Amino acid sequence: MLHGGDYNPDQWLDHPEILQEDLKLMKLSNSNTFSLGIFAWSTLEPQEGDYHFEWLDKIIDNIHSIGGRVILATPSGARPSWMSQKYPEVLRVDGARVKQLHGGRHNHCFTSPVYREKTAQMNRLLAERYGKHPALLMWHISNEYGGECHCERCQDAFRNWLRDKYKENLKALNDSWWGPFWSHTFSDWSQIESPSPIGENMVHGLNLDWKRFVTDQTISFFENEVTAIRELTPEIPITTNFMADTHDLIPFQSLDYSKFAKHLDVISWDAYPAWHNDWETTANLAMKVGFINDLYRSLKQQPFLLMESTPSAVNWHKINKAKRPGMHLLSSMQMVAHGSDSILYFQWRKSRGSSEKFHGAVVDHDNSVDNRVFKEVSTVGETLEKLSQVVGTNRPADVAILYDWESNWALNHAQGYGTETKCYPQTLQEHYRTFWEQDIPVDVITKEQEFSRYKLLIVPMLYLASEETIARLKQFTAEGGTLVMTYISGIVNEHDLTYLGGWHQDLQAVFGINPVETDTLYPGDRNSVQYSNRSYELTDYATVIETHSAAVDGIYEADFYAGSPAMTKNSYGKGRAYYIGARLEEQFNRDFYQELITDLSLQSVLPIEHGPGVSVQVRQDGDVNYAFVMNFTEQEQTVSIHVVAKDLMTGEELSGELLLAKYEVRILAVK
Amino acid sequence: MLHGGDYNPDQWLDHPEILQEDLKLMKLSNSNTFSLGIFAWSTLEPQEGDYHFEWLDKIIDNIHSIGGRVILATPSGARPSWMSQKYPEVLRVDGARVKQLHGGRHNHCFTSPVYREKTAQMNRLLAERYGKHPALLMWHISNEYGGECHCERCQDAFRNWLRDKYKENLKALNDSWWGPFWSHTFSDWSQIESPSPIGENMVHGLNLDWKRFVTDQTISFFENEVTAIRELTPEIPITTNFMADTHDLIPFQSLDYSKFAKHLDVISWDAYPAWHNDWETTANLAMKVGFINDLYRSLKQQPFLLMESTPSAVNWHKINKAKRPGMHLLSSMQMVAHGSDSILYFQWRKSRGSSEKFHGAVVDHDNSVDNRVFKEVSTVGETLEKLSQVVGTNRPADVAILYDWESNWALNHAQGYGTETKCYPQTLQEHYRTFWEQDIPVDVITKEQEFSRYKLLIVPMLYLASEETIARLKQFTAEGGTLVMTYISGIVNEHDLTYLGGWHQDLQAVFGINPVETDTLYPGDRNSVQYSNRSYELTDYATVIETHSAAVDGIYEADFYAGSPAMTKNSYGKGRAYYIGARLEEQFNRDFYQELITDLSLQSVLPIEHGPGVSVQVRQDGDVNYAFVMNFTEQEQTVSIHVVAKDLMTGEELSGELLLAKYEVRILAVK
Amino acid sequence: MLHGGDYNPDQWLDHPEILQEDLKLMKLSNSNTFSLGIFAWSTLEPQEGDYHFEWLDKIIDNIHSIGGRVILATPSGARPSWMSQKYPEVLRVDGARVKQLHGGRHNHCFTSPVYREKTAQMNRLLAERYGKHPALLMWHISNEYGGECHCERCQDAFRNWLRDKYKENLKALNDSWWGPFWSHTFSDWSQIESPSPIGENMVHGLNLDWKRFVTDQTISFFENEVTAIRELTPEIPITTNFMADTHDLIPFQSLDYSKFAKHLDVISWDAYPAWHNDWETTANLAMKVGFINDLYRSLKQQPFLLMESTPSAVNWHKINKAKRPGMHLLSSMQMVAHGSDSILYFQWRKSRGSSEKFHGAVVDHDNSVDNRVFKEVSTVGETLEKLSQVVGTNRPADVAILYDWESNWALNHAQGYGTETKCYPQTLQEHYRTFWEQDIPVDVITKEQEFSRYKLLIVPMLYLASEETIARLKQFTAEGGTLVMTYISGIVNEHDLTYLGGWHQDLQAVFGINPVETDTLYPGDRNSVQYSNRSYELTDYATVIETHSAAVDGIYEADFYAGSPAMTKNSYGKGRAYYIGARLEEQFNRDFYQELITDLSLQSVLPIEHGPGVSVQVRQDGDVNYAFVMNFTEQEQTVSIHVVAKDLMTGEELSGELLLAKYEVRILAVK
Repeated sequence: MLHGGDYNPDQWLDHPEILQEDLKLMKLSNSNTFSLGIFAWSTLEPQEGDYHFEWLDKIIDNIHSIGGRVILATPSGARPSWMSQKYPEVLRVDGARVKQLHGGRHNHCFTSPVYREKTAQMNRLLAERYGKHPALLMWHISNEYGGECHCERCQDAFRNWLRDKYKENLKALNDSWWGPFWSHTFSDWSQIESPSPIGENMVHGLNLDWKRFVTDQTISFFENEVTAIRELTPEIPITTNFMADTHDLIPFQSLDYSKFAKHLDVISWDAYPAWHNDWETTANLAMKVGFINDLYRSLKQQPFLLMESTPSAVNWHKINKAKRPGMHLLSSMQMVAHGSDSILYFQWRKSRGSSEKFHGAVVDHDNSVDNRVFKEVSTVGETLEKLSQVVGTNRPADVAILYDWESNWALNHAQGYGTETKCYPQTLQEHYRTFWEQDIPVDVITKEQEFSRYKLLIVPMLYLASEETIARLKQFTAEGGTLVMTYISGIVNEHDLTYLGGWHQDLQAVFGINPVETDTLYPGDRNSVQYSNRSYELTDYATVIETHSAAVDGIYEADFYAGSPAMTKNSYGKGRAYYIGARLEEQFNRDFYQELITDLSLQSVLPIEHGPGVSVQVRQDGDVNYAFVMNFTEQEQTVSIHVVAKDLMTGEELSGELLLAKYEVRILAVK
Repeated sequence: MLHGGDYNPDQWLDHPEILQEDLKLMKLSNSNTFSLGIFAWSTLEPQEGDYHFEWLDKIIDNIHSIGGRVILATPSGARPSWMSQKYPEVLRVDGARVKQLHGGRHNHCFTSPVYREKTAQMNRLLAERYGKHPALLMWHISNEYGGECHCERCQDAFRNWLRDKYKENLKALNDSWWGPFWSHTFSDWSQIESPSPIGENMVHGLNLDWKRFVTDQTISFFENEVTAIRELTPEIPITTNFMADTHDLIPFQSLDYSKFAKHLDVISWDAYPAWHNDWETTANLAMKVGFINDLYRSLKQQPFLLMESTPSAVNWHKINKAKRPGMHLLSSMQMVAHGSDSILYFQWRKSRGSSEKFHGAVVDHDNSVDNRVFKEVSTVGETLEKLSQVVGTNRPADVAILYDWESNWALNHAQGYGTETKCYPQTLQEHYRTFWEQDIPVDVITKEQEFSRYKLLIVPMLYLASEETIARLKQFTAEGGTLVMTYISGIVNEHDLTYLGGWHQDLQAVFGINPVETDTLYPGDRNSVQYSNRSYELTDYATVIETHSAAVDGIYEADFYAGSPAMTKNSYGKGRAYYIGARLEEQFNRDFYQELITDLSLQSVLPIEHGPGVSVQVRQDGDVNYAFVMNFTEQEQTVSIHVVAKDLMTGEELSGELLLAKYEVRILAVK
Repeated sequence: MLHGGDYNPDQWLDHPEILQEDLKLMKLSNSNTFSLGIFAWSTLEPQEGDYHFEWLDKIIDNIHSIGGRVILATPSGARPSWMSQKYPEVLRVDGARVKQLHGGRHNHCFTSPVYREKTAQMNRLLAERYGKHPALLMWHISNEYGGECHCERCQDAFRNWLRDKYKENLKALNDSWWGPFWSHTFSDWSQIESPSPIGENMVHGLNLDWKRFVTDQTISFFENEVTAIRELTPEIPITTNFMADTHDLIPFQSLDYSKFAKHLDVISWDAYPAWHNDWETTANLAMKVGFINDLYRSLKQQPFLLMESTPSAVNWHKINKAKRPGMHLLSSMQMVAHGSDSILYFQWRKSRGSSEKFHGAVVDHDNSVDNRVFKEVSTVGETLEKLSQVVGTNRPADVAILYDWESNWALNHAQGYGTETKCYPQTLQEHYRTFWEQDIPVDVITKEQEFSRYKLLIVPMLYLASEETIARLKQFTAEGGTLVMTYISGIVNEHDLTYLGGWHQDLQAVFGINPVETDTLYPGDRNSVQYSNRSYELTDYATVIETHSAAVDGIYEADFYAGSPAMTKNSYGKGRAYYIGARLEEQFNRDFYQELITDLSLQSVLPIEHGPGVSVQVRQDGDVNYAFVMNFTEQEQTVSIHVVAKDLMTGEELSGELLLAKYEVRILAVK
């Protein structure tokens, strides 16, 4: 298990006593892995061509000398000033076509030949110099890729991408983008511009292709970064750190990680949940963290790394509240429970100045081992040392939820419905909740992944669904799978063009229904659905459904479609297909999925019973189950363990009732 | 009665089966009129000079073949890409002086010689080709004119407009704009720039003249568009579609429609009220729709057209809720009741892609005649077919409310009072409410229209009042009219310069008072007015009044002006003049105007009694009254008809009690 | 006592009758002092080099003829149009690097050689022409200096300022700005750019130095303005009008007035509190006005001038409510009570047009002496005439609160804590409140001023504290002073770099504690502190404290640090040092400071007792105390005067109970 994090000694080269102290503190905190060089370009190459690796040599050797490992970063996340000054093409241009000044980070043009050449050159030097170093564990390519550039070079790259996609057929593009609408037909490729607040931003096909291009161009930049690395160090795995979006904690929306994942050896991500916030319970936030973990784990169906986290508070939330005692261990173990083989931090030592000087770190400005944070980090390190057998184990699942970046983009661009109530990622988390509450493993998969391995496939709000995806869903059901779909699904194809002639015939066949109208509700509107003799509140969306072969499981209780079907069930081939027509309250999902859980004999991996707010997540290696029993509440919780388990920390055998303190986590092995 | 709407076959030319189906559906929906070519430029002229009318020939012939009529649009609402690319001068420059990219719509420079030439050329070709076509009913010039351009050509045009207005006398301009304030005196015409967030935006005289120029330049562009059309098809009427502003439903504020109306043969407008919203009652929204209708009808004192509406939902509100069953007929009939001779939609067939693909349309993506919307549209068509005798009838009124675009602009620019509580249009709607509730016809007129035809003239918040307007109000009262005026009236003249020496002497004479101070209240402040032994809450504004000859009808109950006059009444010449010093609650207007209604023997056209939320609006042709009895509530309503009426749908004779279902409308003829 | 205000006759030169009337009204309103020429440049020099002083000669002579005095302004606050047109370099460039158009005011480049030359030239002419005029009382340099320019000339000036500050040592700058963070090390001075939303805005050291440069460059511009004035009229005092920030009424934050004050002979400021607002009591607002007055008075430890105020309402608040009867006298006397030797207005006569035409003025558009405002102004003038003996008297204090502009900037830039809950100025006002309520004089001083003259020094939230400041605080305490400090103090040094190795050793010694963690709370979080057997709510911030020699005076009642010290007291040298670890409710400050008041025998100047909302502020000249007894409540208040006093208005002797009407003020002399 990796423990450690981003280490930026380049900020402390004038303080040799600090660098020396760091080595001592690394051991005291039970840390073993450090990410180096993430923003070190101006130290590595302070003037063009004037390279300084000697300090990095020393740091890597020192870490190696204490038995540590290094995740070496390429420094492209921020440029030195001389580069922006000499080669302004490396600077990004924003959507309003304003060229940015030097400053900040993560803001280079992804197309710039100069920046591609400079990064390739730097990365080659790093690979040549450190590729064989015994401390080198992994490559950390750049940092938190994101954003867009709209410069003329990117415009050209976008036009070329389009010519390629549409095979030089401009009419095909105009057709896909529904060109004649508002006279938007292009008569020459050169007329095409990326979406802009001062130009076009309502041609949905253009918007969608632009988002796809941005992902592809980012990956193209990434591939340029790794060329020499792959060549020189074929055996060293490559990652880049993914992100999540806040304020709601949802998957990162700007890049299609399902595409990016294919280019990485290992997935890693930076997790910064706002623990102890005042708008949700701790358990609710834990559920959302679980969802993202299960998505990023499922991207490659293998364990991932937690690349960044904070041992206390971040500094960029509106309120930067520190983790309360116990939360650091609990939240760290949750990551491991869901598949992380590391707990890494941003950053090892708090900066003394500039924007992140108050971002939580292992070593605080006081340089002390006596403060709460350092002690809690050491405890996490100590715990991880006892979990080495967990490394590499996975989490097999019978249930999958389908997450699609492209559908989310298209739905967010779509004008219609409620502009602020679409909430695709949040809706998926709502459907994930029941399984998390019952400790039933879930894969959160993408539309290209295998469906047939799952008993149950849940597809909420799949607004954009290509013919191919529809065919795959149909096949899954026909072959015996259980499929759940909701309102606002199957509306447009991959060009963001609506299906004509009513809902897709295949979907009508699979579900035995035709959804004829989607009602969009004001926040003040009230309606409900009767299901299994109980009434459930609905909000935001309600589908008026015409049933064919489907049975009606729920009916609307009010409005002009009162008495009409809200929920349907249909047998199709060897499988079954459920359609949920409305956005229903939390309890509905619990009750609805409980029926499926019973029918499909879904269950938690281990027979451990508990009340709300406790989560038992398991990693398996075939022989042994590693259970993380976690109390995400502020109260003591009793857990009943109907099996004999061994506590991995204490070695004691456990069974029967177990009392968990507030925020307590226990890690058990069960054969 | 026209029924139909915007038809955009240019989006479907590759789908001949769809175009064929359209003809069938047009008949099934009882539609007879279609607006063509609104955004068709890129199809009509895909490359410069390469014209393609053949498809339009066919469409027009086809519509003609089924007995339909065509409203033919000029396509200037959106340009083809080649034009923006070759002639960048056609692109608009925004107030921050940023040149816009190609994209969107309604965003051309109104001054550009190229765009004027291109539109003139295109319009001439259209007039030549289709001017004699028997299906051609009307010209639809461009679409929803609006917005501003701040390019150098527009700056020059503005300067020339100013030189003309101020007769080459720069000192006159400096005097009007109160030049020495903040050293804003200009020493050369070339120094003048349009208002800008990065320059000047607080010189009120400049702001006001700029708004006037924008209207004039828009009309100048319009006149350039219609030159050939007038020449070649003098007998075909010309319109352009006006708009309303939302979120509150108020008249469109950006252009002075009172000027624009003079250039049109027929007024038409696009009505998109947010029915069933969650911030007001249905009846309240209906009242506001009535107000705008009565304003746009009064602009030419003749029936108008509803040019665009939606049969279900729009796609650009924050929450896009579909009309509930019955609302489409009800809301359509309300338009007719207030003077519309058409019910037309945007659009006939839902687009398959791009930004308005979810905007309600007659034909949905399902292409079906069985869905709710298509059926309700057909019902409206069926109903309209029975209302042909209503076409051309008008709504004589004894009551007028004065609406002034210039005063609204000046007041909105004015720094002072409460920045968010001015609400001129909304205040006028409040004064309109009582008459709407009592089915008493009201004209909403402009300051240039005849006053003497009315018994009662209501002039709320006429902040900007020229000497000429004041003289006309004085004459109206002197000759026997009843005049009502409120707080914040008669403050500035047509240059936005305050009157000096106290309130205008003519106003003091007419009202017998001198308003000496306007108090501006915080939302949390409380005060009230005692009127007719009842206390009414006031908000936002209270005028401290010194009475001369006036009688005091209401007095303030609190604050330092407690006990002083809040409402006054004065005899002047043969007439009377009321001054309402404070913004008073809804019930006050009801009680106050009730007295005037009684005194002036104002009454509804027909003796039909009903409770709140029911509206009876009447169109008259001298012999027959056509009464639209409309239930704008969600409950059944009983209406008492004290006359013998004939139901125009069923032919049956009615009298006495009539039960109206939720949202029901009955259309009666009474001789 | 000066009474009068900004007089802009240049707006009325075409109305000689108005100018004549003004002289009459000046006398009727008991006014004696007028600020001239503030925005008169376009009248003084309507074309380049074409000077027109004749009108100003006449106005000054006229004022002199009625016994009035003139404060003569330099007109640099707004440029004539011809200058912007001919010399675009005078126009400001904003942070996004957008060059502004001509318009507005207070928006010139502070670096522009042309503007410096033009202003120097104009000011020399003014000094030459009017320097010996007997009416000339004072110079009013420009108007409300503020804002920033980011043009290339300012960038160069900033770089030169930095080279100077860092003694041509670029490494020193990189070290101070923590350069290696995000690779922000500069390799050449030319790479440095001012902070920008399109570039760098998170390098805290850069942000702080930029703010310092803006103050210095503003002062440099000011010094250029006054060169000829000082040379030609060495005996005429110089001022410029300072401001406050709203919506909360706090000191102006954009410029470091502690530096600017050194360049002025007299401090003056423009006070526009939102009296009668609906979010706070009148007394609360009065307390805040008192705070700013005591800060601006303490800047030079001498009386100041109220340069601008409104006799009724302003026009730029969201709700522009007029002062209620009595408030104008009360609020004016409060200014005098705290040290103002003037009551001056913006402006004498309301403009007829443009943006400030509704800003309150002495003479309204009605030109009348009968309206409420004119009468209340006259009363103030009459009152001031009886206060001439108060002129020049001061307010000695034993208590000081330390206010630091630089610390405020640094804290506001700091990322961390709560982004919207830092509230440094507001927190200082909270600490000022108790003394204001008890009529105990307070100086609000800056970090460079003498500490030793005070018994009690209160230093809340001094986030940025240099070694030097820390040493001075230590010395103050060691020598017997009582020092109070709070949470978030002593965090960073003057480079905005955090102190390393724990809290500064000197602070640890003085306070006998080590604050080890700062907890940041959500608004929904609840905690409290037990102090003197009472529980006080805390919000936003709580410091976890490790005590060494300190005694614990308060303890936390909840959360993981429940039972640990929240408030400590330590003896150090001959003095004592208190540390308040949390942001505590209003009542805590009352109770805590009451103990210090008792211990240190602090007391009000005079034995006058009263209830909440009454304020007794005293000016002293050694022999006589001038007490302003002010009722800042809407109720009658009884005041007990335990001394014999003489009412300066009536001449009567007073003692014992005195009844104050709502908003009443009494001015008493006590020997």
